[in-house]
Amino acid sequence: MSEVKIIGAAVPNMPWQERQEQGKAGMPVWRYTENPVIGRNPAEGVARIFNSAVMPCNGEFIGVFRGEQTNGIPYIYLGRSGDGIHWDFEKEKLRFEDEAGNEFMPRYAYDPRLVRVEDTYYIIWCQDFYGASIGAAKTQDFKKFVRIENPFLPFNRNAVLFPRKVNGKFLMLSRPSDSGHTPFGDIFISESRDMEYWGRHRHVMGKGNEWWQNVKIGGGAAPIETSEGWLLFYHGVTGTCNGYVYSIGGAILDLEQPSIVKYRCSTFLLTPEEWYEERGFVPNVTFPCATVQDAPSGRIAIYYGAADTYVGLAFAKADEVVAYIKEHSVVSPEDTEIGVR
Amino acid sequence: MSEVKIIGAAVPNMPWQERQEQGKAGMPVWRYTENPVIGRNPAEGVARIFNSAVMPCNGEFIGVFRGEQTNGIPYIYLGRSGDGIHWDFEKEKLRFEDEAGNEFMPRYAYDPRLVRVEDTYYIIWCQDFYGASIGAAKTQDFKKFVRIENPFLPFNRNAVLFPRKVNGKFLMLSRPSDSGHTPFGDIFISESRDMEYWGRHRHVMGKGNEWWQNVKIGGGAAPIETSEGWLLFYHGVTGTCNGYVYSIGGAILDLEQPSIVKYRCSTFLLTPEEWYEERGFVPNVTFPCATVQDAPSGRIAIYYGAADTYVGLAFAKADEVVAYIKEHSVVSPEDTEIGVR
Amino acid sequence: MSEVKIIGAAVPNMPWQERQEQGKAGMPVWRYTENPVIGRNPAEGVARIFNSAVMPCNGEFIGVFRGEQTNGIPYIYLGRSGDGIHWDFEKEKLRFEDEAGNEFMPRYAYDPRLVRVEDTYYIIWCQDFYGASIGAAKTQDFKKFVRIENPFLPFNRNAVLFPRKVNGKFLMLSRPSDSGHTPFGDIFISESRDMEYWGRHRHVMGKGNEWWQNVKIGGGAAPIETSEGWLLFYHGVTGTCNGYVYSIGGAILDLEQPSIVKYRCSTFLLTPEEWYEERGFVPNVTFPCATVQDAPSGRIAIYYGAADTYVGLAFAKADEVVAYIKEHSVVSPEDTEIGVR
Amino acid sequence: MSEVKIIGAAVPNMPWQERQEQGKAGMPVWRYTENPVIGRNPAEGVARIFNSAVMPCNGEFIGVFRGEQTNGIPYIYLGRSGDGIHWDFEKEKLRFEDEAGNEFMPRYAYDPRLVRVEDTYYIIWCQDFYGASIGAAKTQDFKKFVRIENPFLPFNRNAVLFPRKVNGKFLMLSRPSDSGHTPFGDIFISESRDMEYWGRHRHVMGKGNEWWQNVKIGGGAAPIETSEGWLLFYHGVTGTCNGYVYSIGGAILDLEQPSIVKYRCSTFLLTPEEWYEERGFVPNVTFPCATVQDAPSGRIAIYYGAADTYVGLAFAKADEVVAYIKEHSVVSPEDTEIGVR
Amino acid sequence: MSEVKIIGAAVPNMPWQERQEQGKAGMPVWRYTENPVIGRNPAEGVARIFNSAVMPCNGEFIGVFRGEQTNGIPYIYLGRSGDGIHWDFEKEKLRFEDEAGNEFMPRYAYDPRLVRVEDTYYIIWCQDFYGASIGAAKTQDFKKFVRIENPFLPFNRNAVLFPRKVNGKFLMLSRPSDSGHTPFGDIFISESRDMEYWGRHRHVMGKGNEWWQNVKIGGGAAPIETSEGWLLFYHGVTGTCNGYVYSIGGAILDLEQPSIVKYRCSTFLLTPEEWYEERGFVPNVTFPCATVQDAPSGRIAIYYGAADTYVGLAFAKADEVVAYIKEHSVVSPEDTEIGVR
Amino acid sequence: MSEVKIIGAAVPNMPWQERQEQGKAGMPVWRYTENPVIGRNPAEGVARIFNSAVMPCNGEFIGVFRGEQTNGIPYIYLGRSGDGIHWDFEKEKLRFEDEAGNEFMPRYAYDPRLVRVEDTYYIIWCQDFYGASIGAAKTQDFKKFVRIENPFLPFNRNAVLFPRKVNGKFLMLSRPSDSGHTPFGDIFISESRDMEYWGRHRHVMGKGNEWWQNVKIGGGAAPIETSEGWLLFYHGVTGTCNGYVYSIGGAILDLEQPSIVKYRCSTFLLTPEEWYEERGFVPNVTFPCATVQDAPSGRIAIYYGAADTYVGLAFAKADEVVAYIKEHSVVSPEDTEIGVR
Repeated sequence: MSEVKIIGAAVPNMPWQERQEQGKAGMPVWRYTENPVIGRNPAEGVARIFNSAVMPCNGEFIGVFRGEQTNGIPYIYLGRSGDGIHWDFEKEKLRFEDEAGNEFMPRYAYDPRLVRVEDTYYIIWCQDFYGASIGAAKTQDFKKFVRIENPFLPFNRNAVLFPRKVNGKFLMLSRPSDSGHTPFGDIFISESRDMEYWGRHRHVMGKGNEWWQNVKIGGGAAPIETSEGWLLFYHGVTGTCNGYVYSIGGAILDLEQPSIVKYRCSTFLLTPEEWYEERGFVPNVTFPCATVQDAPSGRIAIYYGAADTYVGLAFAKADEVVAYIKEHSVVSPEDTEIGVR
Repeated sequence: MSEVKIIGAAVPNMPWQERQEQGKAGMPVWRYTENPVIGRNPAEGVARIFNSAVMPCNGEFIGVFRGEQTNGIPYIYLGRSGDGIHWDFEKEKLRFEDEAGNEFMPRYAYDPRLVRVEDTYYIIWCQDFYGASIGAAKTQDFKKFVRIENPFLPFNRNAVLFPRKVNGKFLMLSRPSDSGHTPFGDIFISESRDMEYWGRHRHVMGKGNEWWQNVKIGGGAAPIETSEGWLLFYHGVTGTCNGYVYSIGGAILDLEQPSIVKYRCSTFLLTPEEWYEERGFVPNVTFPCATVQDAPSGRIAIYYGAADTYVGLAFAKADEVVAYIKEHSVVSPEDTEIGVR
Repeated sequence: MSEVKIIGAAVPNMPWQERQEQGKAGMPVWRYTENPVIGRNPAEGVARIFNSAVMPCNGEFIGVFRGEQTNGIPYIYLGRSGDGIHWDFEKEKLRFEDEAGNEFMPRYAYDPRLVRVEDTYYIIWCQDFYGASIGAAKTQDFKKFVRIENPFLPFNRNAVLFPRKVNGKFLMLSRPSDSGHTPFGDIFISESRDMEYWGRHRHVMGKGNEWWQNVKIGGGAAPIETSEGWLLFYHGVTGTCNGYVYSIGGAILDLEQPSIVKYRCSTFLLTPEEWYEERGFVPNVTFPCATVQDAPSGRIAIYYGAADTYVGLAFAKADEVVAYIKEHSVVSPEDTEIGVR
Repeated sequence: MSEVKIIGAAVPNMPWQERQEQGKAGMPVWRYTENPVIGRNPAEGVARIFNSAVMPCNGEFIGVFRGEQTNGIPYIYLGRSGDGIHWDFEKEKLRFEDEAGNEFMPRYAYDPRLVRVEDTYYIIWCQDFYGASIGAAKTQDFKKFVRIENPFLPFNRNAVLFPRKVNGKFLMLSRPSDSGHTPFGDIFISESRDMEYWGRHRHVMGKGNEWWQNVKIGGGAAPIETSEGWLLFYHGVTGTCNGYVYSIGGAILDLEQPSIVKYRCSTFLLTPEEWYEERGFVPNVTFPCATVQDAPSGRIAIYYGAADTYVGLAFAKADEVVAYIKEHSVVSPEDTEIGVR
Repeated sequence: MSEVKIIGAAVPNMPWQERQEQGKAGMPVWRYTENPVIGRNPAEGVARIFNSAVMPCNGEFIGVFRGEQTNGIPYIYLGRSGDGIHWDFEKEKLRFEDEAGNEFMPRYAYDPRLVRVEDTYYIIWCQDFYGASIGAAKTQDFKKFVRIENPFLPFNRNAVLFPRKVNGKFLMLSRPSDSGHTPFGDIFISESRDMEYWGRHRHVMGKGNEWWQNVKIGGGAAPIETSEGWLLFYHGVTGTCNGYVYSIGGAILDLEQPSIVKYRCSTFLLTPEEWYEERGFVPNVTFPCATVQDAPSGRIAIYYGAADTYVGLAFAKADEVVAYIKEHSVVSPEDTEIGVR
Repeated sequence: MSEVKIIGAAVPNMPWQERQEQGKAGMPVWRYTENPVIGRNPAEGVARIFNSAVMPCNGEFIGVFRGEQTNGIPYIYLGRSGDGIHWDFEKEKLRFEDEAGNEFMPRYAYDPRLVRVEDTYYIIWCQDFYGASIGAAKTQDFKKFVRIENPFLPFNRNAVLFPRKVNGKFLMLSRPSDSGHTPFGDIFISESRDMEYWGRHRHVMGKGNEWWQNVKIGGGAAPIETSEGWLLFYHGVTGTCNGYVYSIGGAILDLEQPSIVKYRCSTFLLTPEEWYEERGFVPNVTFPCATVQDAPSGRIAIYYGAADTYVGLAFAKADEVVAYIKEHSVVSPEDTEIGVR
């Protein structure tokens, strides 16, 4: 049993594999040896699936997947799995409707996240709103998906919804961006009573002095509620003369005031090392988008996009990873300011 | 009396000067011959005042002014005038407090606008929120200014509040930006029940095919309610090999659904021509930030920043300028879409 | 026998391999399993051969090859093969002479194409003309190569000659460029009576809305005359934060007015997936430069450069690939305009 | 009488003013003291006229003018003048038709030049051909203007036609460009038998080591035939941290082989110094587009655009300016190469 | 008599003009009303003189002047003056020789400074050393100028020598740069026993948070020794969408450890406001290069380049300007670190 | 025995492997078949080791290694090996002290070189000096490392010390850089009497016309003294649309005047071809940092960083590699100039 308590449900059939060998570098996260779990050309008209989110649902697993069509345009596809590893994708891309019941199809839709708050499932993704911005929709049955009109102005990416209201408010992380391959980026938090009107935006944390995250950072998987705070797996980016490198980092946010960073790991938790992370459509990317965790055992499975081409799985134990983050924590003044800007 | 009816008050002492000569190009807006009305080094420790907003108040005029301090950092200064032309500035910069009554001083504050909605005055400006974003505060007496915490995420500039609620909602125009000298920019509209939480963001209009506004546009003066719709003086920017040129344009938005552009003038209404517009801290800028209008006569005075150095005044008559805008109107499909993205 | 009729000769000994397995994505083009057919360091002083063109000649195959010398400077080498797969390269680079019989050696020469029109063979490539531009030469015996002085001004790349005159005129596709790694690019067509003086330049097609070709496109292999029109394999480029990705696309041009695009496939036909396409001197490049086809059977072999390092082979059947292009065709107004700009 | 003989007609009523004072720097070109000759807002709907070309015609002067409309889009307007200084502009912009007699209106048209070869007048300008390129048309009566379909591929600007055929061929200078504010640029020459098909493109001269022309150069006025060669007034551009500076330079090309530069003046002949050159829409521009010269006296009047806002006049005497160019001549090997690239 | 004591000589005939009017902004530096003191085309073949340094010499004044030749290439010219305002320039540019007595002429030479240390005069400037770097030479008679071979590696600009040895070492400020219009820049200090070999390089101060100096800073005039420390007039640069703006700032360095900044004025002391500063070859530049001061009276004359076109003069009194700097001083930790990096 | 005589010691136990096969391209350098010799995660808290330098020491081998910590920040680690292939690294990063004996820890330290001159070992690396610059320290026992305060101003990288004094002076190569991923770069040489004060900086050689080194070059391994001159393995960089490619080149400098290049190989000697060179943190990098050579046999082992991820080994024989360099030598005038700039 884990010393750090995950607040949540048991998911006894979650994907899991014990660590096969201890790397010399001493990381608390390890890869699934059968990676990638989703390979190229996984469905008709779909060249690649990556940067996708899954969650347990009725004893099985359901997910929203970024499917890069063979015309290069990404869209969201629904997928189901019995074990969280082998997936069946719906042939048709996911269709949204607006509040009036008219079909609403964004020009593109990518990097979806999936979160249940109370009895509703929310999908949050990135789409065109005269510039990249956040799309949102809700469903209760994974059949009817009702759009919530633009919660934010462009340019924004990497929105992540908290899995429960805090102080009666929905909370959303996001990463304000620019119109290109944004060479900067901090994580902000916004609150809402109704998922429609958002305000009291605050800064959570910025890029770090550590080189692996010295260009930009962005939210990754929905935060995991633990006895130590919200455990957030996020991505950090550095720049080389030959492009960006995306690694996975970890932080713990205050449970009641999540704009406050309690701990922030100065090292990455996972960085591109394997062939499926190093080469592909965008080389050198590991990009976390979802976790599945089993509260009683503290087991955590991290789903991450690899090289904008594949889906990979990595594993961690809650107490190990929290201990590691705390041990290597470096928090800046800007990470802990409360609304002074 | 004007054929186009301005919905608003009489301001008989508003600044005014009849057109001195008709330029061959046939524009419906003309300059005040005594421009600039505010010159360099207008106050102690202030090098330049420009991009500022004024309004009638108790038979006189009051305004919020962008004062560029001699350290280069802009801040907001309050000013008062009997005639709208000669101004006395408060020596101290404007001080804000937060909801708890603690002082809140942004790192910088520029391009303020000033609007009264019902019985409250709102100041909207641009400030640092880990990136340029919109600051907002309210006052009823011009003594106590209470901050409204960040209504939007960065990066955003050129926010303009409507002078009344529409369909029970506050409406705000803004121009999502990037972290630099933004080389793009469209005008969006956002709505709110309470000035705190904002949503249902929509696109109003984008840069145009016309070259004077083919780089970016942004809101300028608060819209003037007229019988034809909301008359908006905005700025349009073009790019030359030697920098940007900022001109003043005009559009008329639908009264009840202001995200719909009814008319949009394909030509500029005013463009840098005079020495105080062509040279200064930023050459070639005319940037509208406020109007004062007298409803019965249809007279409109436009306050505009010149070369990021001076304040200039220009004049127009409501029926002439509306007629000109309609005659030269070119509206694109994107200007009239309603929430399809 | 093919339903779509290729207008041309029989090439019974052309390279061919039946499809080994059907990818889920449903593409009509498949790779040779023994790729790459030309590996690194293929000849003395030559580090890599790629982006090269071949054709049948007297029962065998002849080709002009981009040989990247060990000093990094590309030049053209002649090669011969009995099966189109195994190649012998001439030790010396190809030598040109001008009309007066003096040696003409360009500073560099890359991406050659080879086409026979009537009884003359034309080589078209990219060379320095105070900037990258199109080089051209003719030969009848592959021994004497006479330069045609600059047919176009710089900057230009990816010129492709049609294999026969149309309406009595030579036709050449090209891709106007800039002086660097051109971040834009459309395909234009030019006509000439004599291969020397060119005019009546027209636009054929531009980059597409589909993301795989949303940065630029450029001509690839010489068009194949078919009963449906000119079948063109071209390249389309998209941009990621870690560089460009070059895919192979397909279009069908009008036989008599080839500036008109009849069909244009919205999906790529082949995109980098294999190690020899994903890593090398320029990762993520598949770049078509020539085809060999057998008219009676409709078999098509596509020679493409891989990662600016290797030569790869892919195969298709004329009726399948034409049917696929037509089924997935999206043609824009700009693709079908005739001389209005 | 001039020692350097201008080959051409007498134009006794050409604009002229003797030098008012000798600057210490010793330049052979001086400004008209009544500059600018065309000021702002010169016609209805036209904000600025500049970068325009004129010529003597039937004892008067006729010209094609770049009129920047109040929507910012440039177009060509015809103008007539009795003295070459005071101009009447046609109210409507110039209308072209294609060979079939259908109207052809480019999306924009700027920087026109006007040249008579034999009994036909040719207008050459810059227009959109899916990118900036050269537009061309011919007229014999200044009423019917018949388009010559795109003589060159994009991107190209600053085309200048020679005033007579050389060796039986039309000759055109041009400056291959890129899709933006081109940060490079050399002058090339092209030849044609028929103004339709162009070839044997050659390099004339590139940017120079001298700083005033170290970014790019481009053709200006049509060359003046003299006993020393073709006298070419061209523009040279340098870059400062605050933008480009456009000066006027001079060169003399070989009469029979004009790709050979005989003399090239290492200093500028005129550079922005006056307020109408230093401030305006594009500060710091002097841009020559046409000359009028009186052969017997050797007087030359240079029409130049100033600050992309005005038309200015400058004067020189043929023998003085040719002597100065020869005295300060620096010619590079690239300026004299003949077809080796 | 001044309260702040200038350590130095009396220069009773130094240029001086009392302040004509007190600007509202309250600055301790004022302009000479007859500015600019050196206008355009000041000498044969020289288009502009600016960014130049002068000093008293034998009861008169001598200076080294950046003369921008009419070919755009800057070189150094010697000038002499009886009053420090009206100057006679030598017709020939200054000639250097190397240690062996051979002529050494740099490819270009700009922004010279002139300092006497002990009995030798040193000229320091910027020249080409396969990239912009620091040139240096010494003279005792202003006739023979012996080069000191490259004291620093490229890229470097704005070197300023101290007027006396400190702790037995020569001291030089410089501003490491890049190969273009450097968008960053701090002031460093280097020491030498012999003017030939330099080491123990340290950081003095970086760009500031104040916007007028938030892009880069660089040394200006040679420091003035005062009872409060080394009084340094330097330049600070900010960036607008239309280019850089160069202002003059002030700081006081520790007498014995000049890498320590004792006071640093948060506001500029002079910023472009006049026409000769706002327009010219590079608009919006005021760039200090030398001072002349009269120790007994505390009068200081500042020579500054204006718009890269003119030389201007400004005046200050030592006690006023030092008091102002101290009153407005903001010093950062990096400004006072001693050799920790 | 080698014909080209290496001046130095015998190192009989140096790493060595005979060439396994002769590539067709004919290169005189070949790879170790067991590469990489240092893999990922080689030590606790260290993700990658690369770009590192070793030397023989007391019959074994010692080295300074760039260890990229898991926080992304590089530091120097000491390592020891019996065979030069298998390495033991110290757990703690190397600690420096200043002359006063206080600890001096740079913010980061990368790309160390290690050279013995007379009886002292010098470590030279790149560190932060308000910008990347050269760090230096000396040790005699590999226990106490005393910092030499900044020998050069920023920005500088790739410093390489000569293994003996020449004409009584220490000599150091370096590559002046900019503040980013420097897109230019030449090799310069500096001299010093004491390792503290440096001067008489001269240019050694610049990027070449050959494409493999047409972006920048930089020093690599410490020069090897031979009977032909100083044998220098350096790196050359070219740029593709998908990033830089780093190859290994070779040159021979004059023994007594090493700013003179005697021979410079026009081809690379080794370029990225293997998976460990083509993919990793920075794809396509081979970066030489040290050699070990056995004088009697002429055997040379080259240690090079691969893909900023691994350490690789390559081998050459002195006479073969010198003969190859001489045979393929192309030397430019700039490579042989002596102090004329």
